Amino acid sequence: MNNGIHTIVYKKQPKVCTWSSVVGPKEGRGQLKDAFDFVMQSPEYNQSSYEAAEQAMLNSAVQICIEKANMHPQQVQAMLGGDLLNQIISTSFTAREMGIPFLGLYGACSTMAESLLLGAMLVDGDYASPVVCTAGSHYCTAERQFRYPLEYGNQRTPAAQWTVTGAGACLLHKNKGNVCITHGTIGKVIDLGVKDANNMGAAMAPAAADTLFRHFCDTGRSPDDYDRIFSGDLGQIGSSLFKQLMKEKAFPLDENIYQDCGNMIFSPEDDVHAGASGCGCSASVLAAHILPRLESGEWKRVLFMATGALMSTVSSQQGESIPGIAHAVVFEHADCKEKG
Amino acid sequence: MNNGIHTIVYKKQPKVCTWSSVVGPKEGRGQLKDAFDFVMQSPEYNQSSYEAAEQAMLNSAVQICIEKANMHPQQVQAMLGGDLLNQIISTSFTAREMGIPFLGLYGACSTMAESLLLGAMLVDGDYASPVVCTAGSHYCTAERQFRYPLEYGNQRTPAAQWTVTGAGACLLHKNKGNVCITHGTIGKVIDLGVKDANNMGAAMAPAAADTLFRHFCDTGRSPDDYDRIFSGDLGQIGSSLFKQLMKEKAFPLDENIYQDCGNMIFSPEDDVHAGASGCGCSASVLAAHILPRLESGEWKRVLFMATGALMSTVSSQQGESIPGIAHAVVFEHADCKEKG
Repeated sequence: MNNGIHTIVYKKQPKVCTWSSVVGPKEGRGQLKDAFDFVMQSPEYNQSSYEAAEQAMLNSAVQICIEKANMHPQQVQAMLGGDLLNQIISTSFTAREMGIPFLGLYGACSTMAESLLLGAMLVDGDYASPVVCTAGSHYCTAERQFRYPLEYGNQRTPAAQWTVTGAGACLLHKNKGNVCITHGTIGKVIDLGVKDANNMGAAMAPAAADTLFRHFCDTGRSPDDYDRIFSGDLGQIGSSLFKQLMKEKAFPLDENIYQDCGNMIFSPEDDVHAGASGCGCSASVLAAHILPRLESGEWKRVLFMATGALMSTVSSQQGESIPGIAHAVVFEHADCKEKG
Repeated sequence: MNNGIHTIVYKKQPKVCTWSSVVGPKEGRGQLKDAFDFVMQSPEYNQSSYEAAEQAMLNSAVQICIEKANMHPQQVQAMLGGDLLNQIISTSFTAREMGIPFLGLYGACSTMAESLLLGAMLVDGDYASPVVCTAGSHYCTAERQFRYPLEYGNQRTPAAQWTVTGAGACLLHKNKGNVCITHGTIGKVIDLGVKDANNMGAAMAPAAADTLFRHFCDTGRSPDDYDRIFSGDLGQIGSSLFKQLMKEKAFPLDENIYQDCGNMIFSPEDDVHAGASGCGCSASVLAAHILPRLESGEWKRVLFMATGALMSTVSSQQGESIPGIAHAVVFEHADCKEKG
């Protein structure tokens, strides 16, 4: 990177060796219902608390991902990831179970892209390989932490998004796999003053537009250079604002190219208002829908940009606005099939 | 790294260009009183809330660090850091003010070492330079989030540690500076079952011993290869347990070589029981005490290992034990004086 340029070029193009997705029952009957590796029968996932269920779900995602590569956690050199819970306990506790050296991240719902961005650096720079990148969220834990206990039964506003119960994981390897990571654009924290904690899409859209615009400027590319561009969880309102902002920046996004993961996961019958959210949203859509199409060669180049709202209940109660962030990574179909 | 080896060697040896420390009044009258860059006159730091004060303190630390290098935030290519507050709002809001591309981390009190470990990779791998690494904590925000509101006036147990009001920042550069980072050892999450949230030192000591032991095995080194070895905030009880564990692992630590930042910051007159804690503890001691001695050449090689307790109030209330983590980085005095 030079001054003013925030897009990383991975010269050795780390490979995505395997990936996995584990989701809850509502997600499992949604638009991508046949694409997930595992659908939990209940949000409790046979655990004593929703928090324990979230941790078990992340555990499953990481384990499935490593098993698909015919590896053992002891062979994985680093784990990068996070979740939405205070002090990212779900991911930390998963790292405890796995025994893998752990780098904890917090990027709110942008965490999957942040972990891929940093994980790809670890592999590309010959610091570690393989590494596992992960993120997850759970509707029931997020509701009671950020909003109300479920038992309270509060009404949701039309702009509200539904936190995905889901987790995704990717195993990055220096040479195994035929999907590679070529670029990463680090997000800036952008805040246009949105204070409505029930309209996260609007809070995150400006950050998404900033990152994508900088990505195009840094690389000299345009939307036409991508088969698909995915944002993380802007939802219906946020993605519409995002498209408008990109149009103003002279990079209009064609609806055949651009999609938001937040609009892809739940069934229309499950009225979730403005769409899906949570870091499990983009993480599970990436693993269930995007990476398989890159592997098959149906898509040759995809930009994946997860978006996060960097607020807490305390910051909202103190009247602070909601800053957003978006990290982007570029995947390419690589012809170099499994070596070594 | 090879399988089973979790110590990174930074081939290009990124330099620590500048550093800074900002602390509260209690820290400012402690053992390192003349060593900090700035001492806040009150914990409120002229802000409307303790949370806003914590953010302003982090802002000051990052700003002072960048100014010392005669740079502007726009010239800094990435900021890595975190704090103890839910959803790391203090660091995220600082990144918003700075406008620097931001990678949010959560490693509890190990965050300063985690940010240096990753920041050094960004510089070493030619992904970004300069980058700013930061961490901070505030006694008043941590108390009300993790324990009780200050107004409640609860009694502290003898094993309790006092969260440091302080922040530290380091600007890493590919060639400016005469202190370099040569190695980094990524921590594993270790949990021996300690459940006492008022005895964090005991919860973190096994993780510290695991990381230091692996560092010695990976590098073929022993304590004698270091002028100093610092742990982050084990405090009196934790550092004593840590020394015992290292002795059992056949790497006894001489008291002339080993010190814990948690025992170095507060004055004995300010009875803080088992010592200091918080990610601002190791971050401010690093900037105020350790890096200047590496710069002057008084010390040639120092291992800095920050330790974190990965619990939340929810995990404790649900009966979970407290997992610990420790990340280590090695600094060396480099003869290569400021170039470029």
